[in-house]
Amino acid sequence: MKALGTQLAVELFDCDENLLNDNNLLERSLIEAATNAGATVVDSVFHQFNPYGISGAVIIAESHVAIHTWPEYRYAALDIFTCGNEADPDTIAGEVKAVLRAERMEVSRILRGVTVGEQERTYAQTPT
Amino acid sequence: MKALGTQLAVELFDCDENLLNDNNLLERSLIEAATNAGATVVDSVFHQFNPYGISGAVIIAESHVAIHTWPEYRYAALDIFTCGNEADPDTIAGEVKAVLRAERMEVSRILRGVTVGEQERTYAQTPT
Repeated sequence: MKALGTQLAVELFDCDENLLNDNNLLERSLIEAATNAGATVVDSVFHQFNPYGISGAVIIAESHVAIHTWPEYRYAALDIFTCGNEADPDTIAGEVKAVLRAERMEVSRILRGVTVGEQERTYAQTPT
Repeated sequence: MKALGTQLAVELFDCDENLLNDNNLLERSLIEAATNAGATVVDSVFHQFNPYGISGAVIIAESHVAIHTWPEYRYAALDIFTCGNEADPDTIAGEVKAVLRAERMEVSRILRGVTVGEQERTYAQTPT
């Protein structure tokens, strides 16, 4: 089944809680993971909450990577949305899991834009 | 079943293609929809692609709202992630659907962080 994009809802359990509260590390890691997975990074925005927890999003030419962390539960919700064939979302998931030293990962996969433009669609036409 | 957060993957079909390529309108609309739904907007980043298509993310205290548009298919992929009880993700979905004049909407719902901190969790501890 063809789709415009693939979205992964990635649950990262039992992470290193200190890493989950390191804003710079998280931003750098998501950018690096996206780049290593073949994505083109466009922009990013990260925010540290008081007393703890970080939310951030990286806009990539292929859509986005976002993360929300709960250090108090050693848990991070990672969200990866890619379109086209250039970027591999599973590579991003695996790399962020390793960086955060998550002991367990669960991945839900959603196809996006499945019924869109079926006659005319080519992957070359996705935003780049 | 309790969860830390709720994520909606919202498919918006048969939208007004001109609206899907209006960067300022999209950013303003997502911020307004999030605010109207009870969320607290923290920051946002939007990017217009050449020749068309926009990707953007709004970081809210309750997680994020992101959108990716394909004006050529009159399609938008909206992604809404909220934690806690303050922000209503369905309100955001409905408002963005109306703004983009989508003729059809499909919503997939994912619970995030379901098994996290079950003993100690209170919603007051989510990032605010």
